[in-house]
This record gives sequence, structure tokens and C-alpha cells, in this order.
Amino acid sequence: MSSIIAIDAMGGDYGPEVTVPASLECLKANSDLKLILVGDEVVLNECLAHDHIQYSERLIIHHASQQVEMDESPQKALRGKKDSSMRVAINQVRDGHADACVSAGNTGALMAIARFVLKMIPGIDRPAIISTLPSVFGHTHILDLGANVDCTAEHLYQFAIMGEEVVKAVENIAEPKIGLLNIGEEDMKGNGQVKAAAKLFEASSLNYIGYVEGDSINAGDEKVDLIVTDGFVGNVALKAIEGAAKMIGTKLKSAFSQNMFTKLTAVIAFPALKIFKQSVDPRMYNGASFVGLRGLVIKSHGGADILAFKTAIHLAEIEISQNVTQKISAKVAATMKNRE
Amino acid sequence: MSSIIAIDAMGGDYGPEVTVPASLECLKANSDLKLILVGDEVVLNECLAHDHIQYSERLIIHHASQQVEMDESPQKALRGKKDSSMRVAINQVRDGHADACVSAGNTGALMAIARFVLKMIPGIDRPAIISTLPSVFGHTHILDLGANVDCTAEHLYQFAIMGEEVVKAVENIAEPKIGLLNIGEEDMKGNGQVKAAAKLFEASSLNYIGYVEGDSINAGDEKVDLIVTDGFVGNVALKAIEGAAKMIGTKLKSAFSQNMFTKLTAVIAFPALKIFKQSVDPRMYNGASFVGLRGLVIKSHGGADILAFKTAIHLAEIEISQNVTQKISAKVAATMKNRE
Repeated sequence: MSSIIAIDAMGGDYGPEVTVPASLECLKANSDLKLILVGDEVVLNECLAHDHIQYSERLIIHHASQQVEMDESPQKALRGKKDSSMRVAINQVRDGHADACVSAGNTGALMAIARFVLKMIPGIDRPAIISTLPSVFGHTHILDLGANVDCTAEHLYQFAIMGEEVVKAVENIAEPKIGLLNIGEEDMKGNGQVKAAAKLFEASSLNYIGYVEGDSINAGDEKVDLIVTDGFVGNVALKAIEGAAKMIGTKLKSAFSQNMFTKLTAVIAFPALKIFKQSVDPRMYNGASFVGLRGLVIKSHGGADILAFKTAIHLAEIEISQNVTQKISAKVAATMKNRE
Repeated sequence: MSSIIAIDAMGGDYGPEVTVPASLECLKANSDLKLILVGDEVVLNECLAHDHIQYSERLIIHHASQQVEMDESPQKALRGKKDSSMRVAINQVRDGHADACVSAGNTGALMAIARFVLKMIPGIDRPAIISTLPSVFGHTHILDLGANVDCTAEHLYQFAIMGEEVVKAVENIAEPKIGLLNIGEEDMKGNGQVKAAAKLFEASSLNYIGYVEGDSINAGDEKVDLIVTDGFVGNVALKAIEGAAKMIGTKLKSAFSQNMFTKLTAVIAFPALKIFKQSVDPRMYNGASFVGLRGLVIKSHGGADILAFKTAIHLAEIEISQNVTQKISAKVAATMKNRE
């Protein structure tokens, strides 16, 4: 199935230096893919040089005169930059020219603009950010990762409904196991918000397995497919995991750099170390989806390199082919009807 | 300086099997240490056999007829088990027979009993749990790790004051750098609680460096000595880090177990892998202090082995020698006076 993706080519720490080569590699890998590169056309043409000639029918450059800075306030970006590459890329989705937008730009601005331009799915109060992390059992999906700092139990319930559709579509699991992030597994544990959410989850048709703790994200006692939490806790947990992985990587490198002998063993152990590195490579998990909007927006890590940005584009391809946004809308509408 | 520590010898997943040998090793390592082993005297005498004869002057067995189960509700443990090893060990601190209590038992019960028996330091509304984690810069201390699921800005401020004294004493740093855990470093980010706390921190004499994100616990852009957060977020972050470390360890092992060749390289790389393993060994960081109480209580991980439990006892020795509880009381009293 052919899909069209609008790329915010100026977004991220590296801009076109990363987004352009990643786009070309994706076009090479999937002959059904079309891309709209949104950004400064002079800069983009320079980056493309003659590399894109072979894809000229599947690659459109769409000029945008502005760009959102990585540290710009969401409100300023929303109000003051109507011709930013980010906004114009999202407009492509709204206007039906693209099936999704991928951006490595400023998360707050991307969410504010996406919400303003695309609007919410009826029945959903707030959009959320969902992503996938590696676990000893395979993958764990988790939301919200930072769109909402204060959530009610109802918001968490809405997140679960949307997250369930994402996991079903992306992982091809009929009934994803859903856990509610808490600080203990016993009923009495937790704050008021989590306890109230648990009641909503229990009364629903969700495959709710109960409270899970922070270690369940990567390595719990049992497999959980989807973890639901508010954006404050989810974001802190995600970043804490990133920090732990970075520290462990640093310590592993340092252990192999102790002396001539350990340096030599690093060379001998290179194949195993390479397998290990690939198995925990965060670039293979790059890309978070905004859910709750009437269109698909994928946020790439700002510091993404070419491989990581390709992963984010690939996530958009999967979600387009699985009609994730449509499935969420249909599920929310059905749920609303049942609750009436 | 001699110190006396009461050990809840029945607590933890392994009870006396771990607590007794760990205690004997600590007595061997520090000739100024005295221990009170609290628990079933028949069981404890059996575990000790004749091993303790050489320490008989520094090792007291104090009988307690009950023990708190790992999954028992804090209220049940508090009301129904007045002769539990946990309670009797804490009583030793209250009655001045011991300078601290160390337990690997049920966290909720330990906190409820410690708070009931020892009482709060005047000026502190709630006790908190503080622990140390490894970071690329050395160590990071973080609180609260689960005692309080809902906190006000004032509670976070009190945690910072107490945590500062712990870090000053344990790390011998004059002005620890203190960060407030948030989901971004910009002023506009965060929920109401964190923003209000930031104002209190800024107006105080604390060496407050601003908001820090989850990755700062193990590997941020700059060194932070103490991270302050509420017990829900802190506990999730701590467990998320544990899960990440466990998953990475599993993947590393699996990479070296791929085939005969990688297995062989694991043998050759053993010295480096051993250095690495030691550098991230969680047993070297076992032990969390309860702060805000009129006595020192150290909580060991329930699943601690002998080495890990020794680390928790050693933490108690350090905090006793540095008069941490007294320093916290004095600092809180001085802060209250300044705010009057």
C-alpha cells in the first residue's frame, strides 16, 4: 500500500543533514513510499544534490520559510511561525496531502501545533505521547510520555483505550496486556488518581492486568504490552531509563579501557559486544506517536542520527498501513456509545 | 567511635540466613561495632552456631516472638505485632540501646512502625526515604523514594533540607548541588507542585541548581548531588532504573552466549566484564535511610544477599559516625527559626 509522509526537514538538532539522507534511504527501501520534504528549498536542494533524481516522482520539496527552534516556546512557535517547516508539514496531513508527519523538532511546539491544526478526536480530552521500549520479553509500549503533567483517572482511561489500539495494530496482538504504573502491586498502594483509574480499568473491556511497577517497563516479572501513566511520571521514567543505559554503556567502555590487556580483550570480544550493542541500540526504538489527534504525527528524538530518523519514518509507515488513527477514532466512538 | 546497631534479623526474603552472616562479617571488619540481633532466639542461636564466640562481647541476641511478613499490611503489622523483630529492633533505638536499626523487611510496615515508635522531628511533616545511586559523576542521592505518594511544595522543600544534611555528612561535600526532578529544564515546564517548590528552593539558602530531568539520576549533563521529588515519581524512577539495568545485564549475557566463539570470548574478557559488573553492582548501593524521624532507620532491599545487607549495615555505621539524625534536627530547627 502506498503511503505519503510529510517530513519536517528542518527539525531536530541536525536538520536536513539527518532528515534528507534518512528520507532518501527510506525511499530506496520502500518503492511504495512518497515523501514531502518540508523546509527551506534552497537548503534542501543543496542537501539533495543529485542524489534524489532516481526518486523524483516520489519526492516532493515543499518550501517553508521559517523553522521552529529547539528551545522556542510552544506558544511562540504556534502564533508567530505560521510558515515553519513543522507547521507546514502538519498542514499536509490536515489537507489530506500526507498520511502522516514526522518531525525531530521541539516536542512542546510540535504538540501545540499538531493539536491546533489537526484537532482532537471527539471523546478524547487530551492527546498523549506513546512510544515503545525494549524489554526482556520483547517490547513494552508506554504512554503518556510528557504531553500531560496533570491527569485525572478519566484521562488515564482514555490513554489506555488509545494505547490498546496502537499496540494491537503495531504488534498484531489481539488483547494486549495493560498495566497501570504504580509504586506497588497491592491494591492499597498508590495515589488517588491511580486508584480511581484502576476502578475504571477494571470495569472496562480492557485486558487490564493490574498495577505494575517501574521495573516492568524493561524487565518485570511478567510480560506487559502497554503501561499507562501520566505524562510527568512517564517522562521521568523514560529519561531515567535513558540515563541508566548511558551510564551502564560508559562503565562497560571504561571496564574494557582499563589497560592493554582489557583493551585487547575488547577487540576479541568485538562480535559479542556488537550483538549486545545492537540489542539495546536506542536508535532502533526512535519515534513516539501522538495519539488522540485527527491525524498521525510521529515525534523523533531531537538528537536522532540518520538510522534513528529512519526508524521514526518507518514507524509512520507501519501506523499508516495499519490505519492506527482511524482505528483509534472508531474505538473511541464505540466506547463513548457504550458509556452513554 | 563505637556504634551500636539493632538488626531486624528476621526481616527480608531470606531472614537470618542473610542477616546473621552479614552481621558477623561486619563485626569482624569493625572492632568498634556492637550489634543487637533481634528475632527468634532459637533460630538465631542455631544460625550463629559457634561462629560468634569471638564477638560475644559485641553481639547481643534480643528475643522477639513475632515477625512481620513481607506482604503484610503496615497497619496490621503496627497494631497486631507488638513483639515483632522489626518493632523490637526499632524500640532499641527509641530506648537509647542502639544508635540505628537496619531491616530488610516490608517497607510500608517499617515506615509505619518507625514513625509510630520514634516520632517525627519537630518541623517535619512527613518522613522520606533517601538512597544513593551510581552516576557517571560518582553518586547521586535521591528522595523521596516511596514514603509519600502525594506531596506539596512545602514537603519537597523539607525533603531538600533533610537530604542536604545527609549528602553533606555522607559525601563530605560543603554545598551539595540540589536539583528538582521535572520533565524539562525550562521554567515553564512541570506541574503546579514542582513550580511552587522551585520558588521555595530559589528563596532558600539551598545550593539549588534548578530543574533536572530523569536522566540526571545516573548520567546528566552536569553533576547533581541531590535530586528531590515526590515518593510516587521517585519510586517509579528508581524501579525503572532497576529494570533497565536488569534488561541490559540479560542482553549482555545473551550476546556472550550466542555461540561457542562468543562464549570463549566471554572467558577471555572475564577480567573486564568483572570490573564492569562490580562498577554497576546494585549490592554496593543497598540501603535507604528514613529521614525526618527522631532516630536512624536503614531499609535494606528485601532480596538483599549477605554482601548487600553488609552494605546497608555499613551505611548505618557511616550515618551514626556523622551524626546525621542530629544534624537534620539541628538544621530543621534553625530553618524554622529563620522562617518565623
